Amino acid sequence: MSDFTCIPALLRKAAKILLSADHIERQLHAKGGSQNFVTDYDIRTENFLRENFARLLPEADMLGEESSDTHAVRIAEGLTLIVDPIDGTTNFMQDYRQSCISVGVCGRGTMIYGAIYNPYADAMFTASLGQGAFVEEKGVSVPLHVSSRDLCDSLVLFGTSPYYRETLAEPTFRTLWNLFRTARDIRRSGSAALDLANIAAGRCDVFFEYLLSPWDYAAGSLLITEAGGSISQMDGSPLRFDTPCPVIAGGKAYAELLSGGYLR
Amino acid sequence: MSDFTCIPALLRKAAKILLSADHIERQLHAKGGSQNFVTDYDIRTENFLRENFARLLPEADMLGEESSDTHAVRIAEGLTLIVDPIDGTTNFMQDYRQSCISVGVCGRGTMIYGAIYNPYADAMFTASLGQGAFVEEKGVSVPLHVSSRDLCDSLVLFGTSPYYRETLAEPTFRTLWNLFRTARDIRRSGSAALDLANIAAGRCDVFFEYLLSPWDYAAGSLLITEAGGSISQMDGSPLRFDTPCPVIAGGKAYAELLSGGYLR
Repeated sequence: MSDFTCIPALLRKAAKILLSADHIERQLHAKGGSQNFVTDYDIRTENFLRENFARLLPEADMLGEESSDTHAVRIAEGLTLIVDPIDGTTNFMQDYRQSCISVGVCGRGTMIYGAIYNPYADAMFTASLGQGAFVEEKGVSVPLHVSSRDLCDSLVLFGTSPYYRETLAEPTFRTLWNLFRTARDIRRSGSAALDLANIAAGRCDVFFEYLLSPWDYAAGSLLITEAGGSISQMDGSPLRFDTPCPVIAGGKAYAELLSGGYLR
Repeated sequence: MSDFTCIPALLRKAAKILLSADHIERQLHAKGGSQNFVTDYDIRTENFLRENFARLLPEADMLGEESSDTHAVRIAEGLTLIVDPIDGTTNFMQDYRQSCISVGVCGRGTMIYGAIYNPYADAMFTASLGQGAFVEEKGVSVPLHVSSRDLCDSLVLFGTSPYYRETLAEPTFRTLWNLFRTARDIRRSGSAALDLANIAAGRCDVFFEYLLSPWDYAAGSLLITEAGGSISQMDGSPLRFDTPCPVIAGGKAYAELLSGGYLR
């Protein structure tokens, strides 16, 4: 039985790499599309996690965003660590402080542990399968519960799938428009993992993005289900962790989002 | 000559009212439209500021969002403190931690001092006319400079004018769509004052909202001009502080936003 309790402390150490970043030195390496940025800090953070996970959890494979050539993930037979060293890289580049480190642990296709660390708020979100979800802030740990607001009272978080802008801008904006006319208001942080943590914490109510990669939602998906919420593809089918997916999530209002005719 | 150096310390004290808020007790008082919320904490924070400003700056009138019956502001002959006790009230209600306290000082129609305090990040943004803009974080004060990115490389911050949803949703989304296709990406925090502080800090690049009230932009407007940026109504004319305005702001990309055909 693997012990994942080492992961939060490791993420706090890794976050020091982010927080030490000199604004001038946030150099870029173009990775894929024009909006797909990767900085030296993404790579340094991922390498730090890879080295330490090899020592702390040698039984697990690690799949990191920055060392993947594609957006697909090969899930190993045993344990797979699905890692986003900096979720919200564009924010990080511009020092817009909405970024996090996300690590999900997948065992034979099921998420069994997840941790998301927001270094700017010093907020550590964790979940273990069947054991609930928690956030630790200022040394105090509290259980997470999704919201019980209806869609008309919801704050809607959305992503713009910037890596797939050409094909997904139109459905994204159509859904956004329809939800804006129904819901309380809309928010966009630029970090899907932080958005899912905020849904788990009941601070916002529903989330949608037309295409995300597994490292964006691996940890967040377990946070949400352990906090009593729902997360799925847009047709209600389960998320996949071996390939990019459309993602919807939420507390009580998830059902209205799924079946209310808002999605393509 | 009035001394405004007392304002940051007062905002830090006022923020303790926000940070003490029990999540369950964030009771509402409907103020105007369906999206125009005011909590007990808005009122308590405004009353705290009013009592203290009467003592510290007795020569100044204070106009606060929560004690105004309308969105218009009567600007006194002498000094007027234009106060938003909680900018981002919907966020505050839901514990989505994107809110701030904003105080601008207007002297005969011109902003001469501004302070915006983000209690979640402990970030104090201040500006004095002709003396530059600064942010103090973790005891370190650094000067603010707007960004020099072009519009194609910009993060666009936007507001949805939720108090005027019926008439302004369509132009808001048309502008948003046109900017999304040009710029790097879009962000929405739900706090116009924080957005303007982020523009002043060069962390984001341009901002637009079709209608805001003076307390939303009084302090932020001086932060931006003192940080080398531009802020105006959407036709380029100066902001007014006696009535609600449409607002655009930015660093280098402001000129492209103003004249590029993106606005109604």
